[in-house]
Amino acid sequence: MSIRVGILGYGNLGRGVEASIAQNPDMELKAVFTRRNPEDLKIATESASVYHVDDAMKMKDEIDVMIICGGSATDLPHQTPHFAQFFNVIDSFDTHANIPTHFENVDKVAKKAGTVGIISCGWDPGMFSLNRLYAGCILPQGTDYTFWGRGVSQGHSDAVRRIEGVLDARQYTIPVEAALEAVRDGKNPELTTREKHTREVFVVAAEGADIAKIEKEIKEMPNYFSDYDTTVHFIDAETMKKDHAGLPHGGFVIRTGETKDGNKHLIEYRLQLDSNPEFTGSVLVAYARAAYKMAQEGMSGAKTVFDIAPAYLSPLSGEELRAHML
Amino acid sequence: MSIRVGILGYGNLGRGVEASIAQNPDMELKAVFTRRNPEDLKIATESASVYHVDDAMKMKDEIDVMIICGGSATDLPHQTPHFAQFFNVIDSFDTHANIPTHFENVDKVAKKAGTVGIISCGWDPGMFSLNRLYAGCILPQGTDYTFWGRGVSQGHSDAVRRIEGVLDARQYTIPVEAALEAVRDGKNPELTTREKHTREVFVVAAEGADIAKIEKEIKEMPNYFSDYDTTVHFIDAETMKKDHAGLPHGGFVIRTGETKDGNKHLIEYRLQLDSNPEFTGSVLVAYARAAYKMAQEGMSGAKTVFDIAPAYLSPLSGEELRAHML
Repeated sequence: MSIRVGILGYGNLGRGVEASIAQNPDMELKAVFTRRNPEDLKIATESASVYHVDDAMKMKDEIDVMIICGGSATDLPHQTPHFAQFFNVIDSFDTHANIPTHFENVDKVAKKAGTVGIISCGWDPGMFSLNRLYAGCILPQGTDYTFWGRGVSQGHSDAVRRIEGVLDARQYTIPVEAALEAVRDGKNPELTTREKHTREVFVVAAEGADIAKIEKEIKEMPNYFSDYDTTVHFIDAETMKKDHAGLPHGGFVIRTGETKDGNKHLIEYRLQLDSNPEFTGSVLVAYARAAYKMAQEGMSGAKTVFDIAPAYLSPLSGEELRAHML
Repeated sequence: MSIRVGILGYGNLGRGVEASIAQNPDMELKAVFTRRNPEDLKIATESASVYHVDDAMKMKDEIDVMIICGGSATDLPHQTPHFAQFFNVIDSFDTHANIPTHFENVDKVAKKAGTVGIISCGWDPGMFSLNRLYAGCILPQGTDYTFWGRGVSQGHSDAVRRIEGVLDARQYTIPVEAALEAVRDGKNPELTTREKHTREVFVVAAEGADIAKIEKEIKEMPNYFSDYDTTVHFIDAETMKKDHAGLPHGGFVIRTGETKDGNKHLIEYRLQLDSNPEFTGSVLVAYARAAYKMAQEGMSGAKTVFDIAPAYLSPLSGEELRAHML
């Protein structure tokens, strides 16, 4: 029997999760839950149903894991603990400062309900965190660096869109090649924000808008742009649609360390992703399998990628993994 | 109180383990066990004792984890199950075809004794296996490739040393850059052995030896060299000592996969190591901590890197990891 999955929230991430489920023969998308009118929502999976999110509890016995695809700012802090009462749940909560509180909230509910609740799963937090942990444990005398990009930051794109005269915008975060090379060479550079990443912005301006003023406002925007070297390009809506429709992303986690007699070591983990939401969705689906398997073994409570033995992610048995993957 | 560690076997790997323990404040090297005369063995750690391997059992209550640093061919198949009767143990068994049997042998003993026995730990098998597993679970529709090098293969170096007229030899395995690039570009190339790696050999020949004959014998040696493009350099003993004393190694695990609509993703894990035994030793020490923590929680039996939640490798608590590493 396959693992029956629910998706709660059908934005970019929800659709990415749906695509990934279709690639995993041991999993089945049972239903999508939405805050919109369910009848208006067309999903890609013909065999799955669409329900209003308020009807989720009615599907309690039909769903093994609920993948919660809401936003970290306002949705997940409430949704994940709430639905952990009824389902094994997993989310991609990424507000780093609030992870401890979110973990506690989910843990309390999940332990009481006997469910598993995986939080903060994706690539950062997620696979990048894992690689920082593994590398740091192996090379305790070392330094690690995380670089993001080249990729679209939706938060920065949104910030530019709020500027007067801007019709559409796309912001790319780009790691500085020279900084990457200095890190890889084991030089342990102390890097300022400006030295690690640059930002590149593509803007569709309204007709007659003050282009110079928009560019200045972007470059001087505190927190988002003022600490970075930013390049701004004005393009037409057609070009935006043609060249910037995707949501690529990626990055690097690099740790360099020494053991003895100056012997240096480098551990580098790199992601290059055509679609950030589809990759994040794929990570969520692998860990949804883990949530199911752990719950089957009687575990409960909140978990992060740190707490989950890698074998739980795989559809293969321990014997198969040892024979073919080790 | 620190985790008390024993090292069984004091070759390159044992010394690498010793160096790593010195970098981990929560761990302490208690004793080294050797098959040599203990009085003849000088170790780097002044506070640790040296015993004959036959006296290991006397230290049963003084050692929390025994790191077994023997060879995979003849030592580990006997040593690891044997010592799992008395200690939590960990080894770097790397004869891939015999891993299932070795696992069963250790599992039986360790379960009965209530100890934890981690096998096949290092970077391949070990960190490379982990990365193949994680990447394969995230991108089920994809292909993965492992490249080794640039690094010294001790097995190949030994094979060359057995040729008549060879006084010393060092063999480097080198990944083919064009193959690496084709993989990174997502071209899913089908690569023959010859297309993935080349081999470079440095030889010190005896005076008057038949250089041409040695080179021919190397290049035509079945299994070791005949399937590869091999370059042979003859050097003097001085140059060998000066330029080839180290044991560098490393490599790449790359998986490329697709999600939907042709969206491609690349996951790359790369190691570049000045000292293979010191890095392998560092991995063993991090997992020795895991063995100790798992045994403290009442777990027992054989484990591989697949079975061990990443948090066990760290000296930090779950709270600290979530607050600072996620």
